[in-house]
Amino acid sequence: MAKDKAPRRPRAETPKGFRDYFGAEVTERAEMLATIAEVYRAHGFDPLETSAVETVEALGKFLPDVDRPNEGVFAWQDEGGDWLALRYDMTAPLARVAAQFRNDLPAPYRRYTMGPVWRNEKPGPGRFRQFYQCDADTVGAPSVAADAEICGMLADALEAVGIPRGDYIVRVNNRKVLDGIMECVGLLDPSDPEIKQHERGIAMRAIDKMDRFGAAGVEQLLTSGRKDESGDFTDGAGLEHLQAVWLTTTLMQRLSSNEETIAGLRQQLANSSRGIEGVDELELIASLLDSQGYGPDRIVIDPSVVRGLGYYTGPVFEAELTFEILDEKGRKRQFGSVAGGGRYDDLVKRFTGQAVPATGVSIGVDRLLSALRAKGRIGGVAKGPVVVTVMDRDRMGDYLGMASELRRAGIRAEVYLGNPKNFGNQLKYADKRESPVAIIQGTDEATRGVVQIKDLVLGAKIAASASLEEWKEQPAQVEVTRADMVATVKKMLGA
Amino acid sequence: MAKDKAPRRPRAETPKGFRDYFGAEVTERAEMLATIAEVYRAHGFDPLETSAVETVEALGKFLPDVDRPNEGVFAWQDEGGDWLALRYDMTAPLARVAAQFRNDLPAPYRRYTMGPVWRNEKPGPGRFRQFYQCDADTVGAPSVAADAEICGMLADALEAVGIPRGDYIVRVNNRKVLDGIMECVGLLDPSDPEIKQHERGIAMRAIDKMDRFGAAGVEQLLTSGRKDESGDFTDGAGLEHLQAVWLTTTLMQRLSSNEETIAGLRQQLANSSRGIEGVDELELIASLLDSQGYGPDRIVIDPSVVRGLGYYTGPVFEAELTFEILDEKGRKRQFGSVAGGGRYDDLVKRFTGQAVPATGVSIGVDRLLSALRAKGRIGGVAKGPVVVTVMDRDRMGDYLGMASELRRAGIRAEVYLGNPKNFGNQLKYADKRESPVAIIQGTDEATRGVVQIKDLVLGAKIAASASLEEWKEQPAQVEVTRADMVATVKKMLGA
Repeated sequence: MAKDKAPRRPRAETPKGFRDYFGAEVTERAEMLATIAEVYRAHGFDPLETSAVETVEALGKFLPDVDRPNEGVFAWQDEGGDWLALRYDMTAPLARVAAQFRNDLPAPYRRYTMGPVWRNEKPGPGRFRQFYQCDADTVGAPSVAADAEICGMLADALEAVGIPRGDYIVRVNNRKVLDGIMECVGLLDPSDPEIKQHERGIAMRAIDKMDRFGAAGVEQLLTSGRKDESGDFTDGAGLEHLQAVWLTTTLMQRLSSNEETIAGLRQQLANSSRGIEGVDELELIASLLDSQGYGPDRIVIDPSVVRGLGYYTGPVFEAELTFEILDEKGRKRQFGSVAGGGRYDDLVKRFTGQAVPATGVSIGVDRLLSALRAKGRIGGVAKGPVVVTVMDRDRMGDYLGMASELRRAGIRAEVYLGNPKNFGNQLKYADKRESPVAIIQGTDEATRGVVQIKDLVLGAKIAASASLEEWKEQPAQVEVTRADMVATVKKMLGA
Repeated sequence: MAKDKAPRRPRAETPKGFRDYFGAEVTERAEMLATIAEVYRAHGFDPLETSAVETVEALGKFLPDVDRPNEGVFAWQDEGGDWLALRYDMTAPLARVAAQFRNDLPAPYRRYTMGPVWRNEKPGPGRFRQFYQCDADTVGAPSVAADAEICGMLADALEAVGIPRGDYIVRVNNRKVLDGIMECVGLLDPSDPEIKQHERGIAMRAIDKMDRFGAAGVEQLLTSGRKDESGDFTDGAGLEHLQAVWLTTTLMQRLSSNEETIAGLRQQLANSSRGIEGVDELELIASLLDSQGYGPDRIVIDPSVVRGLGYYTGPVFEAELTFEILDEKGRKRQFGSVAGGGRYDDLVKRFTGQAVPATGVSIGVDRLLSALRAKGRIGGVAKGPVVVTVMDRDRMGDYLGMASELRRAGIRAEVYLGNPKNFGNQLKYADKRESPVAIIQGTDEATRGVVQIKDLVLGAKIAASASLEEWKEQPAQVEVTRADMVATVKKMLGA
């Protein structure tokens, strides 16, 4: 029968690409999210929380890596036959909300949201299939003033979480400028955008990965194709050599001032009315930012910004940390992108048929946290609770009472609840918890109405710096009356 | 070609049983979670955040409604062939973590966690398929002192979020007591627990739903079965009438003091050693709670507590709000359960083969929020931002600058980013946002170096209470120099 079969034990593992977060990892993220939310809120954005699960049709297909069969999402079929999926970003759910509640929401609708998103992608070092985003979007604002506001707010948010000016840069471009460039090299016919869509995709992905492929690799991808280290061949976009050079030169011409960059683009895209429209928008954004005091040391016009997602239609922007960190292999590298966004005027239209202008930004909170940790700006050791040790297990009620009393005085405290037989284990436990103080009361102390209070921080210092003999003479442990316990602990904690 | 086909528009809807949370719904929940976390933290619990996705084998099958084919979870098959699922509670993932990191975690390991869980159940009014839980658990503590600590902490948490003493009760029972009762009526043979497992399940579910079926319905389910309103028949557990009466009487005997309840149980379960073990544990818990000042007005021994989940092995507890609210149909009813938990000594053993004692509590945060809202204790109107209106769209830079200046003074502020043509729409927008103040600067004001500041709160009051003539004379709008703008707004906001 079934009961005779020894069942195989389940593996105690997260699924591949997922991980757990402990202690300060959790609280530091919560603090960062709260700080960013406060910046968003100050700018008039209101909170929204959608559920993790959406219908696949509502999410749509906008992830960059369109070659994968399941399109990068975790999806399953509901009993009713509907396909459901975990959200892969916060923008698609917002477009659904903006359509569903279009008669109730204020217009424009500014909202912020924070939470995990899920990508069914190949995990890699530091690359997980669940990660946090903290987004702000404005729906229903056609003017690029909305884009400018969001770029400025992004700079404010980065400074608020502890990235000083000079350690980040927000780079701004416009999809219309990219379209203009594509038009000028013959990869886009404005009267029929479906022509050369495939080649355009190849070119966009190549440009987006400039830092990975290098200039030579990108040129191969723009022209006849590229064979990678493993020997795999990727088709090229079919441009002539000179076209490819012109394209990369135009993209790379972030000049010494926004004015010069814009003037250069205006000249090179003279033959594309769409391109010029994009240049005009960039010029207005630069001027609006300037009037609020966001200089090019914080936000700069940069034609090389692409952004992978398929739904952008106007300004696109990306925040990047400019300091160097050491990677897993100890090599110096720039930290890179931590946030990005742009204008996506057609996402709500998918649902309603009516165009609704929208723009927004997404901050990759987990990447930002790891940047701050790499720089040593967060990640101190969390302080543990006072541990009330158990000397006499029949007096558990007294010990629980001591912990309650400490807590009522605002002191984090707990009773040791493991097997109390070995007292050394109790102190090892307190060490592991980073406890500042341990309380000890055996039968003798109880009879005399006193407790021993052990200063574990001082004890550790003494142990590290002095010989055993000296250590014994130090007052890292004091005896006080039971009534003085709370006051003494408070004093030791400097509280 | 494909482009000629008009694609069907996606529906702008959440999947059935899911919903969106706006504005104060989001911030009030965040505040409640932070308050509960603070209580848990004070008791020495450390934060843990696992991912939403686990392997199906790691989660196990412990949901109460075992009759459904997919066992109440959202699950899908990964490309590698593994079955993945969204967590249905926070306990199963903790057991996985406790097994996976058993060599690194402190022992005992006290952890708290908060976040959404997902149940693939039939949605109903106020019943959603994603909801928040805020849990605290102690892993590796065999003593019922750990259970007592958690019951007391639950009472503290309820009071901290605004449920006054008297409006809640934590009821405590023990699975061993329930086992003893089953043994006494012949539904459990301790030497072979698989015998009559099915009948025992029927009996447990019947008892758990006492408030829904009533005493008569429960007796039918305990004996020969029950036909419900729709004519559907549910099998009974097969007890004799007298056995059923004895069983319900024993469960219902929450007497006027814990001592009496315990003495009654001790007498009735004299023939079950497992039952007596449970009674002993209840007695110890009552005494430990008493010594910390948690009287039976807050935490009480109550043999009728069952708890649906299959994994409990010892003490079980449930917090219930005792005040009445009006239901959807305007009828008075008790609010009912908002939290529950218990001891589950075998969950970690599933992974490692070694027994690891564990106990914990889960607070149903969304239910608790709706209770506080029903009592009017939370849910004030959130205050909107100051709105800088747009009179002259060429001067957008100036307007953005005004909003920046207000924010630097700590005032929430935004520029109106909709179509500025109709000024009335801008004021309607400010109304909808619950904005306290609007800033107005047309060409004339700009030339003169002044701004108009409109007090929308006062304006609304005047509009509600006075005739149009009187309204016009009131100073709900003032003109000040541009330099005085921030100071004047600050004064109006009482900031």
